[in-house]
Amino acid sequence: MSRETNHKEGWRAWHTIIRLPEFPVRPESTALIVIDITYQQASPNYGNCKRIIEAGNGNDLKYYLERMKNKVMPALKRLTEGFRAMGAPVIYTRCASLRGDGSDQTWRHRSFGLTIDADEHEAQIMEEIAPQSGDIVLVKTGSSTFTSTNCEHLLHNMGITTLVVTGIYTNSCVEGTIRVGGDLDFRCLMAEDACSAMSPSGDANAIEYLDGNFCHVKSSDEILGMLRKENEAA
Amino acid sequence: MSRETNHKEGWRAWHTIIRLPEFPVRPESTALIVIDITYQQASPNYGNCKRIIEAGNGNDLKYYLERMKNKVMPALKRLTEGFRAMGAPVIYTRCASLRGDGSDQTWRHRSFGLTIDADEHEAQIMEEIAPQSGDIVLVKTGSSTFTSTNCEHLLHNMGITTLVVTGIYTNSCVEGTIRVGGDLDFRCLMAEDACSAMSPSGDANAIEYLDGNFCHVKSSDEILGMLRKENEAA
Amino acid sequence: MSRETNHKEGWRAWHTIIRLPEFPVRPESTALIVIDITYQQASPNYGNCKRIIEAGNGNDLKYYLERMKNKVMPALKRLTEGFRAMGAPVIYTRCASLRGDGSDQTWRHRSFGLTIDADEHEAQIMEEIAPQSGDIVLVKTGSSTFTSTNCEHLLHNMGITTLVVTGIYTNSCVEGTIRVGGDLDFRCLMAEDACSAMSPSGDANAIEYLDGNFCHVKSSDEILGMLRKENEAA
Amino acid sequence: MSRETNHKEGWRAWHTIIRLPEFPVRPESTALIVIDITYQQASPNYGNCKRIIEAGNGNDLKYYLERMKNKVMPALKRLTEGFRAMGAPVIYTRCASLRGDGSDQTWRHRSFGLTIDADEHEAQIMEEIAPQSGDIVLVKTGSSTFTSTNCEHLLHNMGITTLVVTGIYTNSCVEGTIRVGGDLDFRCLMAEDACSAMSPSGDANAIEYLDGNFCHVKSSDEILGMLRKENEAA
Repeated sequence: MSRETNHKEGWRAWHTIIRLPEFPVRPESTALIVIDITYQQASPNYGNCKRIIEAGNGNDLKYYLERMKNKVMPALKRLTEGFRAMGAPVIYTRCASLRGDGSDQTWRHRSFGLTIDADEHEAQIMEEIAPQSGDIVLVKTGSSTFTSTNCEHLLHNMGITTLVVTGIYTNSCVEGTIRVGGDLDFRCLMAEDACSAMSPSGDANAIEYLDGNFCHVKSSDEILGMLRKENEAA
Repeated sequence: MSRETNHKEGWRAWHTIIRLPEFPVRPESTALIVIDITYQQASPNYGNCKRIIEAGNGNDLKYYLERMKNKVMPALKRLTEGFRAMGAPVIYTRCASLRGDGSDQTWRHRSFGLTIDADEHEAQIMEEIAPQSGDIVLVKTGSSTFTSTNCEHLLHNMGITTLVVTGIYTNSCVEGTIRVGGDLDFRCLMAEDACSAMSPSGDANAIEYLDGNFCHVKSSDEILGMLRKENEAA
Repeated sequence: MSRETNHKEGWRAWHTIIRLPEFPVRPESTALIVIDITYQQASPNYGNCKRIIEAGNGNDLKYYLERMKNKVMPALKRLTEGFRAMGAPVIYTRCASLRGDGSDQTWRHRSFGLTIDADEHEAQIMEEIAPQSGDIVLVKTGSSTFTSTNCEHLLHNMGITTLVVTGIYTNSCVEGTIRVGGDLDFRCLMAEDACSAMSPSGDANAIEYLDGNFCHVKSSDEILGMLRKENEAA
Repeated sequence: MSRETNHKEGWRAWHTIIRLPEFPVRPESTALIVIDITYQQASPNYGNCKRIIEAGNGNDLKYYLERMKNKVMPALKRLTEGFRAMGAPVIYTRCASLRGDGSDQTWRHRSFGLTIDADEHEAQIMEEIAPQSGDIVLVKTGSSTFTSTNCEHLLHNMGITTLVVTGIYTNSCVEGTIRVGGDLDFRCLMAEDACSAMSPSGDANAIEYLDGNFCHVKSSDEILGMLRKENEAA
């Protein structure tokens, strides 16, 4: 993916400083992170989308629903299967309450009415990309994966140094995970077509800020191609 | 500050879910965070700005330089003095290498050519808002304050539950600090006129994402007014 | 429990400095932590004990097995039931691999042959004190609860400031959790009769170091009494 | 150093499980941690020792004072000089308050009367082993180095995987740092003659628990020998 030239004021100055080098992407040190593809968060028929439709704002979901159906879910299927085939870890997060009543989720999530019992159907990963044996599923009690799970600990234990981050919402938990991941010295990639915000500007702003800064933004197929090339060379 | 109605696609859907409650702002439990106002990072005559000018992109700094001079530095002066007068902690961060050679800063910062010896003049807080006795200065080795300093530990020890976040750059270390701060259950405020990005869109995008979500965005004077009112009531 | 006077050289000097104040123990801000009471770690018939017996060191388990049967398991039953009755959170940890193959557990645990698939029967909490609806069960991938789970995040979200720590082994994961818990500014209690080391000196050394320093060491019934008194007063 | 056979009940059972492998110790991936050798904490003439003497318990300091003078300070001098000569990082911690009034130190340290302004002479590293240019000095606001500083972040940035831990007190901040360090998957060594507790049993208990479990306990000269051998081979 080539980044469009951007003529906004201040962009050229910023990119005099910001210029992340490329890095190798090897199956033995790379993990796939799939963020919040639960019925509550991601499905058109439950949770967030249902609330938005019931509040009369269903028309405003058009971008999100089409993108999820046509791009994101198929890309996630290819990525999860590809990582498993190469023996690389697949890590899912789902926002939920282990206690059941939401008291262990953040004040933000409680304020937003997003609390959900981890045992409920709506809190599970959508079956289209259901976790398989050997995958890791983390119950996330906040927004950034690193701040509210033990993911960093697991990644260090596994010798993982490179992350491919996917899921929803691009400018929210995905961006938050990439910002902290980059700060923790992980080499990060965003699989652009495997992520969605609720709005076109949500996607565009996240990519504009993160690309070449905290991560490289690439397509799922580009990333799978890089991994397969290294896998064959090994 | 009232947030303008935003008619972008998807914004209404998003804000059906996202709606952070107001909260009290009390001097005994609130800290001011001043991010990266060092000569290297912030001054027109050193470090980042000098590099940008030498690369021929000086014209692209117009927004940033005017905003810093006319809004941000005066607001930071009022805020730091106001917090000190009420006995509330003022915490500065500065990006620098304790080892001197940059090896203890993140790979991103090394790649961007941002390493600097913590003892150098350019790595110090600008004298216009120089730290005073009783302030805390943290050497930050990454982007988000929480990920690369012991700030959370200090805040818990001090009984601080509310943060007023300021400094540079709005969409980068400031936004990163507010995202993680909110996730750590701190009640966060961004003092909008005490922050700057390098571009108008950098400021606008950060505010659009964060306001009413991870923090409330208010002016420095609004925030000082809230603190003074609580201080007098106590 | 009164601490015996200790005439070892250096003890009096140390305790001129070390002297933790008492603190209130209230149901609304106190959590029970039950560490590693899984079949693998704790049961006489599985995992660690089985390995020790097969290696010909079964006689050396006498202290541990009697203490677990006669003191620890009954105390854990009273504590878990008591906390639930007062609406206070009960948090269990179990050492296991979410990935299944142990690669996400620490190098120490892998080196010690302690890896176990989180889905196996041996990795579950023993049925005598089985988790109930509303309890939290954390998969711990290292020794200290705080270092290898998101427990601190959950506790802050729930407004918990006081911990009652129990389980096995007193001088190992229990002590490690209390050391870090105290450092994170939690007020800590060790329920002495609800913990066991593998040896009398393991218990004695942990208590000697921790009591009045990182926690107060009390009996389960003393702690339940303190909670009930506060509960009735509220 | 060979570990004495220990015939205490339960010890053999425990060590059927606990058996840390040896690992290489290379200058390019090893850091020296020197804990709390400040005038307040370590010197016979200030802070803790002065308080103990004034409380009439000076005789009880005999073991500590002799060990520090004859073993620990000379070993720390050899270690710090040896690490610097091989280009390996030397990291000091000192317990102090950045705010000055102790409010940013833990409740434990405040309760123990251990608060001290980071700018005071008593809070500095003792001049016999004073930090040199290129060394890192961290202000530690709690007990364990990892829990209350950004040390883990710095170590990851520098590519450090192995730690040599030294300083005071063996069974307190030193042991706490090794426990958490091991849990964070660092390969840890304790340089036994470069550490001291306040009592012989404090040293003995820490070594009995940690050796072959969270670290290997070796002499300073053994460790320097291992590093030099790798350095010459490189």
